[in-house]
Parts: sequence; structure tokens; C-alpha cells
Amino acid sequence: MATIKDVAKEAGVGLGTVSRVLNNHPSVSKDKRKKVLTAVKKLGFVPNEAARTLKTQTRQMVALLIPTTDNPYLSKIAYYVEEELFNRGYKMMLCNNHAQVDKELSYLTMLRRNKIAGIIGITYNDIESFIQTNIPIVSIDRNIGNDIPCVAADNLKGGEMACHVLLEKGCTKLAFLGDRTSKNSEVKERERGFLNAARERGFDVLNYSNIEVQGPLHEHSEFIDGFLDQMDEVDGVFCISDLLAAAFIKRARQRGYRIPDDLKVIGFDGIQDNSFFHPVLSTIRQPVEFICKRAVDILLQKIEDASFQTGKTLIPVAFVEGETT
Amino acid sequence: MATIKDVAKEAGVGLGTVSRVLNNHPSVSKDKRKKVLTAVKKLGFVPNEAARTLKTQTRQMVALLIPTTDNPYLSKIAYYVEEELFNRGYKMMLCNNHAQVDKELSYLTMLRRNKIAGIIGITYNDIESFIQTNIPIVSIDRNIGNDIPCVAADNLKGGEMACHVLLEKGCTKLAFLGDRTSKNSEVKERERGFLNAARERGFDVLNYSNIEVQGPLHEHSEFIDGFLDQMDEVDGVFCISDLLAAAFIKRARQRGYRIPDDLKVIGFDGIQDNSFFHPVLSTIRQPVEFICKRAVDILLQKIEDASFQTGKTLIPVAFVEGETT
Repeated sequence: MATIKDVAKEAGVGLGTVSRVLNNHPSVSKDKRKKVLTAVKKLGFVPNEAARTLKTQTRQMVALLIPTTDNPYLSKIAYYVEEELFNRGYKMMLCNNHAQVDKELSYLTMLRRNKIAGIIGITYNDIESFIQTNIPIVSIDRNIGNDIPCVAADNLKGGEMACHVLLEKGCTKLAFLGDRTSKNSEVKERERGFLNAARERGFDVLNYSNIEVQGPLHEHSEFIDGFLDQMDEVDGVFCISDLLAAAFIKRARQRGYRIPDDLKVIGFDGIQDNSFFHPVLSTIRQPVEFICKRAVDILLQKIEDASFQTGKTLIPVAFVEGETT
Repeated sequence: MATIKDVAKEAGVGLGTVSRVLNNHPSVSKDKRKKVLTAVKKLGFVPNEAARTLKTQTRQMVALLIPTTDNPYLSKIAYYVEEELFNRGYKMMLCNNHAQVDKELSYLTMLRRNKIAGIIGITYNDIESFIQTNIPIVSIDRNIGNDIPCVAADNLKGGEMACHVLLEKGCTKLAFLGDRTSKNSEVKERERGFLNAARERGFDVLNYSNIEVQGPLHEHSEFIDGFLDQMDEVDGVFCISDLLAAAFIKRARQRGYRIPDDLKVIGFDGIQDNSFFHPVLSTIRQPVEFICKRAVDILLQKIEDASFQTGKTLIPVAFVEGETT
């Protein structure tokens, strides 16, 4: 098999140039790039990573079952899970379940009949009964059952953190704004952490989260208005997600609140990668990359050793200061 | 095989309730939901969609080769391609290539050795030489070669549209701000459409796009500053992407420009799904859902009939008014 040295020799360029072309580095002239790619083709050169793949011949497939990739937090999960699987020699099949039991069951049925090495899943549906425990599964964000390992951000600590930040910033009346997706999921811990920390420090919390919210977020104005109507003297709000925080801030501003002057708001997730769009939210950031790495790691351990057992793994979160506290 | 009626009878509920549980509709009591799921499990009921899957036994796999899903435009592509493939009875394997030739080649090598029905790809690398034409391929956004169908937004019309909007809004000195990813891709047509339309109407354009930009967008401040230094009397700017528009607007405001009063800015893509974050960009929106549907449609025609030929398919774009024009 041709080596990178053979390619450099054939193309009449240095090793560094070949490497830069293979890594798509822009500082290579068109001419040299062409020479390298011609040599690669002529010699049938296969880069290192691909060569490693060839050794294992066919890679095994892992299915990622998530509601959608059309969401900034979940699309990051798809990205990092795929990256880690690839690095560990696996392929990833993407299964968007649209948060619908019907599609999810359909995928699970299909996965049972296909040769799937394992499943990594984020699901908010009651699908426990359909999961075949003979396929290794790792759950992200939700504790599905005793035998299925779960990897999640340390939501409890995140909730506590949000409370401490608001109190340190001088807030005296706190509120929690949640939504129904938090049910049956680790996400519920955010609420618990926030309420616990407030109670410990002697503060009451207006808890506005026991309402069933349907449909996409931009239709939540009635829900948010209901909260604003009850808010009274509240000066610090912890929202269960960044998107809900953003929707709430928009409506609160329309109703005359100045943020952060009158009202400080903290979200959860960390969906903003840049500071181009405002408000830049103050938020508890989920370490998506580590959550995914750990989930893949546990899944591969289960694939290699069916008797491998582990419970819930919590990954530390961090407060990121934005413009809203 | 048990039907939905059997499930309703076993659970002692109506057909509507079973359907609502399977579609995860929230207006079902916990008690009824549990009864339905118990009945589903007991009878081994498989929903319609899953039943359809069973008929075809094993679904074929299509690979989606894209730089990353950690980008709002590309994560939408992953979402819509998967959805359309699923509806048409196919599975999707996600291959993030990180815009690196090395990883892309590795994936292509792997795909050749696996049973893949076809590939849908967005690639900005020079990988033509590695593509095996015996696997059906459809390209999104980029014209890879004569034999490979390409589906793209009507970038040329989009560029023209941006020019007309800026002129109608009263701009008299126009500029185009591009970046290197536009090379070798349909994206280049945005520039051409904008320049053509301006020329036809007798306007000059300051074209600032022939610069090699490296690294993530937030590090582009030098590039953007270079443009701002040369801008002079420019009062209308068309940016090649929404993210570049957002980065440019941030820096322009820091340097004292009022947008849209002093300067009107149009982006391209349509990455904002809500109006929670500002600026809400005026932009030429790519109809991602139709691009993906069409790409899948063409790929499946090629899979079913190897002699099927089609060239470039352009999908119409639309101007969406935001806060920046």
C-alpha cells in the first residue's frame, strides 16, 4: 500500500504539502493541490484514518435516536456522538423520531431486524416496553430504566448554581419557569436543584412549570403571559431551557421589563456559540461534547462486554455569564 | 397481527385514545396511557408505519456526507434528508466530514466497502477523483461533476434579489462580502447574481470576497475590519451567509454604523427560526426542506434506475424581511 512518502515523491512536493492538502489547509497553491490529488489517485493512496478502517473491514453501526436535529442542542449531540463513534471505529445511523411514539416504535422495530451494534437515545416517550434489552443501549438526559445506563449533565447542580447566581446578583424574589418536556427526564432535576437551593437559603420560589405546553415554542405566548400575570415582585427567573428563556425575555420586554435591570434571567443549555445575536443569554451550559464522549464510551464497553453495568453518569455543568443577569 | 382495534378493546379505551397515545398527544391521562401501552406490549402490536417497514424487511441505507451538523443550516439538512428518506423507506447514515479531506476519504473508502444504496453529499473538498460512480450520488449545493446530479437553491436569483431589495430601499453604493467557502460551489452564483443585477441597473459594487479566510467565523474580525476600512460611502451590503452578515453587523455597529439607518445588510440562508434573538436578519432564505426532498427524490430514482440522468436542479428562494434593511 502506498505511503504518504510515495505520494510526496510522485507529486514532487514535500511531505508537509501532502499533509496540508489532505487536511484541506488553504495555504497550498491550486497547482500543488492538483499534483498531490493526482498522485493520490494514481497510487491508490489511502490516508491513515481510512487505512485503519480497512483493517477492521466493515464498521459496525450504532443508531442515534433523537427527536430532531433541527434544534441547536440536539444537533450538537448528533455531531459529537458521530465524531466520537467515528474515532472509535463505528458508523452512526441517525434516527429523528420527531418526539412521536409512532415513528420511534417504527425505528425500534427496524433496529431489531437490522444488525445494529447498539443504540444511543434521547427520548421523551414512554417506550420502555418496546426496548429489547439484548441490544446495548445508553440513554442521554433520561433515566429509562434500571438496566440502561444514563449520561446526563449534572442538572441538579445546574439548578442550584442558577439559584446561587441570582441571589448573588441581589435578586430577592425568585421564580422557576418550566415546561412539560421536563417530565420523566433528568431535566426535572434542574427544577429540584433550584427549589432546594432557594429553600436552604430561606427564599420562596414562584414555580410555574406544572402546565402542559403543546406545539412549538413561538406559540407559547399564552403560557408566558400567564406567568407574567402572576409574577408580581419577581426579580430573578430561572428558565428550564435557553429557548424558553429567549421567548420569555422577548415577551417580558414587550410588557415593559428591563432586563437585567428589573429582572435577571438565566437559561439552561448553552446554545449560543457566538455573541452576534442578542440577548446573549446568561446560562448553565451543558458540556455536550463530554456527555456524548461518555455516552459512546459506555455504549462501546457494553457492546464489548454484555455484563458491563453502570448506572447514571453525571457530567459537571458551568455558569456562563451573558447579558441577562 | 394485532390491530389498533384489538389494542383499544384490550385496554378498554376508544380508538382515538390509542391513536393519541401513539402520537404522544398530551391530552391523555397517565392512567389511560399506561393501559394502552400495556395492551400494546401484551398483544405485540406494531403501528402502521412500523408494519410497513416490516414488509420491506430491511431498509436500505443512504449516507449523508456533510461537513458538520453543528451549524444551523446543515443541521436542518440532516433533519429533512433523514425525514424524507424515512418516509420513502430508507435509513440514513450520518457522516460528518469536518470539511477535512482526510476524514471524507476515510468515509468514502468505508462506504465503498459497505452496502450503501447511495450518497447525498455536501462537500467543499476536491474529492472528485475518489468518488466511485457505481454508487448513486446526489450533490447538494455543489456541482461535483457532469454525471452527478446537483440540487441547490437558486443562488443566482437570490443574488439578484438581494441587489433589487437594496436598490429599492434606496441604497446607492453597494458592496458584496464573501468568503472562501464559496469557491467551487453553487454558492459562488450568489456573487454573480448580485454583480450582474447591479451592473444591469448601472451600479458599481465593491467586491470584497477574494480573500482566503481561515478558521471559525468569530476569528474573522481582521477580514471584516479590512472591509470596513475600504467601505467609504457604501450603504448596502450583501453578505454571502447569515453568519457572516451577523459577524459583520456586530463589528460595524462597534465602529459606529447604525443598521439599517446608515447601512442596510442582507444575508443568505435563513438560519433564524424565531424572532427571539436580534438582529433578526433580512435574508434570502434557502428552502432547505424542498432542496432535501428533491435530492432524496433524485437519489432514489438513480438507485432504482442506474440509467436515470439529470443535471442541476434549482429550487426557488425568497427574500425574508428582518430588522437589517
